[in-house]
Amino acid sequence: MDMPTLRWLDGPGGPAIALLDQTRLPAEEVAVTCRSVGELVAAIRRLVVRGAPVLGLAGAYGVALAAYQGQDVTAAAAALAGARPTAVNLAWGAQRALAAWRAASRAPGNDPPAAALAEARSIAAADAAASAAMAEHGRRLLPAGARVLTHCNTGRLVSAGEGTAFAVILAAHRAGQLAKLWVDETRPLLQGARLTAYEAQRAGIDYAVLPDAAAAGLLASGEVDAVLTGADRIAADGSVANKVGTYGLAVLARQHSVPFLVVAPMSTIDYSTPDSGGIVVEHRAAAEVTTLAGQAIAPPGSAAYNPAFDVTPGHLISALVTERGVVQPVTAGNLRVLGDPQAPPKSALPAISVEL
Amino acid sequence: MDMPTLRWLDGPGGPAIALLDQTRLPAEEVAVTCRSVGELVAAIRRLVVRGAPVLGLAGAYGVALAAYQGQDVTAAAAALAGARPTAVNLAWGAQRALAAWRAASRAPGNDPPAAALAEARSIAAADAAASAAMAEHGRRLLPAGARVLTHCNTGRLVSAGEGTAFAVILAAHRAGQLAKLWVDETRPLLQGARLTAYEAQRAGIDYAVLPDAAAAGLLASGEVDAVLTGADRIAADGSVANKVGTYGLAVLARQHSVPFLVVAPMSTIDYSTPDSGGIVVEHRAAAEVTTLAGQAIAPPGSAAYNPAFDVTPGHLISALVTERGVVQPVTAGNLRVLGDPQAPPKSALPAISVEL
Repeated sequence: MDMPTLRWLDGPGGPAIALLDQTRLPAEEVAVTCRSVGELVAAIRRLVVRGAPVLGLAGAYGVALAAYQGQDVTAAAAALAGARPTAVNLAWGAQRALAAWRAASRAPGNDPPAAALAEARSIAAADAAASAAMAEHGRRLLPAGARVLTHCNTGRLVSAGEGTAFAVILAAHRAGQLAKLWVDETRPLLQGARLTAYEAQRAGIDYAVLPDAAAAGLLASGEVDAVLTGADRIAADGSVANKVGTYGLAVLARQHSVPFLVVAPMSTIDYSTPDSGGIVVEHRAAAEVTTLAGQAIAPPGSAAYNPAFDVTPGHLISALVTERGVVQPVTAGNLRVLGDPQAPPKSALPAISVEL
Repeated sequence: MDMPTLRWLDGPGGPAIALLDQTRLPAEEVAVTCRSVGELVAAIRRLVVRGAPVLGLAGAYGVALAAYQGQDVTAAAAALAGARPTAVNLAWGAQRALAAWRAASRAPGNDPPAAALAEARSIAAADAAASAAMAEHGRRLLPAGARVLTHCNTGRLVSAGEGTAFAVILAAHRAGQLAKLWVDETRPLLQGARLTAYEAQRAGIDYAVLPDAAAAGLLASGEVDAVLTGADRIAADGSVANKVGTYGLAVLARQHSVPFLVVAPMSTIDYSTPDSGGIVVEHRAAAEVTTLAGQAIAPPGSAAYNPAFDVTPGHLISALVTERGVVQPVTAGNLRVLGDPQAPPKSALPAISVEL
């Protein structure tokens, strides 16, 4: 992917947001240009852009777009926050840009749209820095010659930097620490086979794609040293909503005493959701399961069970890697300490290194 | 499927075996006609015919075909037995027909090819009877209003009768006991989405297809009362080799206290393999994972990890349902009693009913 995942356009056609269409990767690199919040929400829903951190950027840039176009900025922020119900970063990013726009609107002489855009750019810069910090925190947890299993896609496509779990994998690869990357294909939308495999291939990583259901036997065979995933929302008690299949991997990793690491920026932690009961899991269309590339793979008329996410309890997560440091064990108390702006994060954490 | 899975043809073109091509279901019902053991072995390898019990029939009819054509019958039996390394029924069926052919060859006045064919027909009749017996034994283990999760395909296509696990599901459906059938799509070859969904739809069962990785969350949500699968080989200690993904389901079913039932005829128990260490797991081509219907779903050049099977230890299996009765717990000792031709099977079994 030489095309950025998300770009702010400010040409003669007026402001717009260009998204690299992830549904068409790796076959082709095509941009989808959104000139209104409505177009952006539609693109988010059909997963043109996906992945927790970059959805935060989409939320923030979307609010800036509404501001420049003189739309109802508060309504735009609400529409963006509700585009997908599980991913918390969307609402977080939209809220940040909305707050900046409101603050600028209160005093004369300010440029509120420019303030919203500046906030979006600041989120992007912070996201890239967070990605680099997570990469380094996470890499240190991996042994030499690590054989890592990952699920879904968590690399450059989901971030203004190099991503979350995949940023750790890349850092380990560059440090000569990575012996093998096992890539769950990640049905139904194959983000692993299509996107993670593509990023791994371009980085020169030794990888193999596997059917999601083959991960259990692979873990049993002793060929995995750590499982790394991202997160779409983390409740205050450490429950992690992430791509469907994550929970099963966590149970199986525990069964085989393989460390299960979640890599996510602080913006993914939703302190207002106390536990898994507050996480709404998005259910998506049956056609994502029953057809592939326009072809039926199940009898016409088949119903499908197609949740986009599942929820993994904190006690199954060996460690949570954030830009502020590593949390272990993943408990409500430890997450509270992590999120306390008064506490010097690193030293306040109960554990910032984990024995693997 | 109105076309039988396997038919013996004895027309003017000479003897042959017609196989319903399972790779093209449910889109079309096409037969593949095998006029030699070589053609039959090739068809077995590319999964034109698949599923434990019917592979036993293919092995036996294949030996009869070799006998009628004056080929080396012993070599034909060996070739059939080795066509796929994990499924034990192939070798078992070939061996039975070979023994019948040999016995007939020893005495003058016999018709050895006819003896092999008669043995194949007898295996088919016994398989249909075993299917009916398993269906009834298994059905009694299910509660009223059962919501059953199954993996791969275990119905009419794999059997001269109604199959193994799917025969139990059908019996429960006819008895008004089945509230819902959850169908794992079963990547990479989608035997669940393509074949089980098709059989369920034709039977009027309320079913939904799910990505294999969604089963974990479904089990966690309490919407599954029992998991039912077939088996491709059962070692003497109760280790079950079955379609990749079975082992993960067994771990997750145990995690959520959901009964995990394996339904398989006695011919699937391989008493000569003491434990899982003796089970060779077949690894198949990367293209099964990286392409679908001729389209690339991973970057060209991607490696894949593609074992056809995994192995589930007996202690994770709540009960094994065979035509002779139900074994619980699944241990070497109980399997020995089950297989003892001197012991009246039912009464000798430690448990023939299971509390679910």
